[in-house]
Amino acid sequence: MRTIKSRFGDYTVHSFATVPEALAAIGTRDDPRFLVDRTVHGLLAPGERALLPEARTVLVDATEEAKSYGPLERVFLELLGRGLRRDGRLVVIGGGVLQDAGCFVASVLCRGIAWDLVPTTLLAQADSCIGSKSSVNVGPYKNQIGTFHPPSRVLVAPAFLHTLAPDEIRSGMGEIIKLQLLAGVAGFAGLMDELAGYPDADAAERVALLGRWVERSMDVKQPFIEADEFDRGPRLILNYGHTFGHAFESVSGFRIPHGIAVTLGIVAATTVSARLGMVSAEHAAEVARVLHPWHAPHADVLRDIPPGDLPVALSRDKKNTGRGLTCILTRGPGRMERVGLAEADVSGIVLPCLRDLISAGFLPVPSPCRGAP
Amino acid sequence: MRTIKSRFGDYTVHSFATVPEALAAIGTRDDPRFLVDRTVHGLLAPGERALLPEARTVLVDATEEAKSYGPLERVFLELLGRGLRRDGRLVVIGGGVLQDAGCFVASVLCRGIAWDLVPTTLLAQADSCIGSKSSVNVGPYKNQIGTFHPPSRVLVAPAFLHTLAPDEIRSGMGEIIKLQLLAGVAGFAGLMDELAGYPDADAAERVALLGRWVERSMDVKQPFIEADEFDRGPRLILNYGHTFGHAFESVSGFRIPHGIAVTLGIVAATTVSARLGMVSAEHAAEVARVLHPWHAPHADVLRDIPPGDLPVALSRDKKNTGRGLTCILTRGPGRMERVGLAEADVSGIVLPCLRDLISAGFLPVPSPCRGAP
Repeated sequence: MRTIKSRFGDYTVHSFATVPEALAAIGTRDDPRFLVDRTVHGLLAPGERALLPEARTVLVDATEEAKSYGPLERVFLELLGRGLRRDGRLVVIGGGVLQDAGCFVASVLCRGIAWDLVPTTLLAQADSCIGSKSSVNVGPYKNQIGTFHPPSRVLVAPAFLHTLAPDEIRSGMGEIIKLQLLAGVAGFAGLMDELAGYPDADAAERVALLGRWVERSMDVKQPFIEADEFDRGPRLILNYGHTFGHAFESVSGFRIPHGIAVTLGIVAATTVSARLGMVSAEHAAEVARVLHPWHAPHADVLRDIPPGDLPVALSRDKKNTGRGLTCILTRGPGRMERVGLAEADVSGIVLPCLRDLISAGFLPVPSPCRGAP
Repeated sequence: MRTIKSRFGDYTVHSFATVPEALAAIGTRDDPRFLVDRTVHGLLAPGERALLPEARTVLVDATEEAKSYGPLERVFLELLGRGLRRDGRLVVIGGGVLQDAGCFVASVLCRGIAWDLVPTTLLAQADSCIGSKSSVNVGPYKNQIGTFHPPSRVLVAPAFLHTLAPDEIRSGMGEIIKLQLLAGVAGFAGLMDELAGYPDADAAERVALLGRWVERSMDVKQPFIEADEFDRGPRLILNYGHTFGHAFESVSGFRIPHGIAVTLGIVAATTVSARLGMVSAEHAAEVARVLHPWHAPHADVLRDIPPGDLPVALSRDKKNTGRGLTCILTRGPGRMERVGLAEADVSGIVLPCLRDLISAGFLPVPSPCRGAP
């Protein structure tokens, strides 16, 4: 059991070897209500599904639409209609979309009710399940609404990952890679070594491997969120790869899954760092090379976008409060820094670098010294 | 200046003799965005309105609809469209509806942005402007969504009260009366003495009188909200009159203004307390008599409602987590208590008492001893 310190009261993360053990740990003595990913619900065994009474359960499709302000009205009404009130408990079962939707609903229903989270995707287990944030879209504005409201308990069963599609594994791996790059040379090298064996592993070995990196990811993330729950200082470093990743996600019309966009964003941030002379060209080339199997061929979508879209998407970044561009760059593993780039650097260095990467399919591109033509 | 202690950071309340002084204190160096009651906006002098640039201002009609989840999507979109972002500031100008809408929007936009409040009604100035809560409706569920997110500053100008309709003054007076009943015998007697002169006072004298009771109301409320910001213990006493008041509001289809429903709720809670033998029949009769001019003839609406509506409305109270009824009753001024009533007491004592009050137009009704036929 892991205990996460929070300004809202500490909360705990529990690990389970099997799905039934995780579901049994939910408990039903207080008659909780359930918000469940429809696909996950369909994949449960009949005996597991029986733990989620229909009259107490709201099913949701895990789409961007489902974590959008307008469509969430239905979820509020269905949960209130099923009797969820101030002293009730909401149990959320699903990946990142369900977590965002469920956290937001729990945080504002009756000014905040208790909730438990059963993350079922690699991204949710390794990264988003701790940190207490929700992000909700409103109209065309992505993730511009949200709250801080940690669950009481997080119940993690890597066995849920058995049924994930390969792209969902890769999407979760984007955040795992990011966290190990933040951890330093040893963490990143260790992850890359283990991942080399992933393609040849059988299903049980894969789940065991992913389960280990779920734990190691939380080891890295936990001190950041405990030091800066409200995302004003040290925690911003966790956005490594995200400024560029969000822009790629956005210009692709969200055809690139979030975590895979983060992997592309890591390649971009490392390559930009090299062009600015912050890190060696060799490090940038190595990162681009080893991450390639974890995103290809999603970057190909970016070849077709109109050239003006990327600068517009970058300028819309939520973290970006003025002109130019604020992003997390790197001086090497474990040495990320928040950097404010002037408009001239954005147009003269960042955008040409991104164009080169897109042309090369995010394989290594040359990194001329700063100021070179 | 008054400083209110809050878990989210202390905030301040500032008083101003005139409307232009309050508006000037908003400041524009950080280019704030404005959320303004359309009626208040229309009543501002041209020079005052010029302080609120059209491209930075969203106008809202102060209706129940405006503080409802669905319709608030437009407010989010308009404020984002006008450039409000994470480091921006929202200035909310209006009464309780604007405060609820603005507080909710500010609390979840970019996971919480800074906001200032300029309360323009008596109810907002005397009561709701401190306490950090928002309440938002969703579908048929009233006030079931909300947040805690205090403003950075509250700018109070009693001069705004000049233009209020008599029923809006009476609605604010409901909460002022409640707070002075909570304060004890001296507070309530002092208020009643001063109010005796209200009908004959001229406009300037009335505003001066109301301004004094705005301050005295905050004096009473402040220690409750500082001791229990999250509404789990001592602060629940502030709901005196509200369990019954909300039910009256609801069964009237919200034709009775909130504060006037609270006044009716105070008469009801005091009369029920007398029937339960908690307080003297004389006290209940005095409260009913002196409050009569501050609510009549709104209680007449209640004569026409189907008899089954009231018990249903009472059972729906947000604070009510089990069977029976939890409400705040009284042993006299300054001696309110949270009481859990069994179902038999609700049907045998509370409901007959409410029916008697409705028949009598909320003038004094006899209070037979508990158990009398």
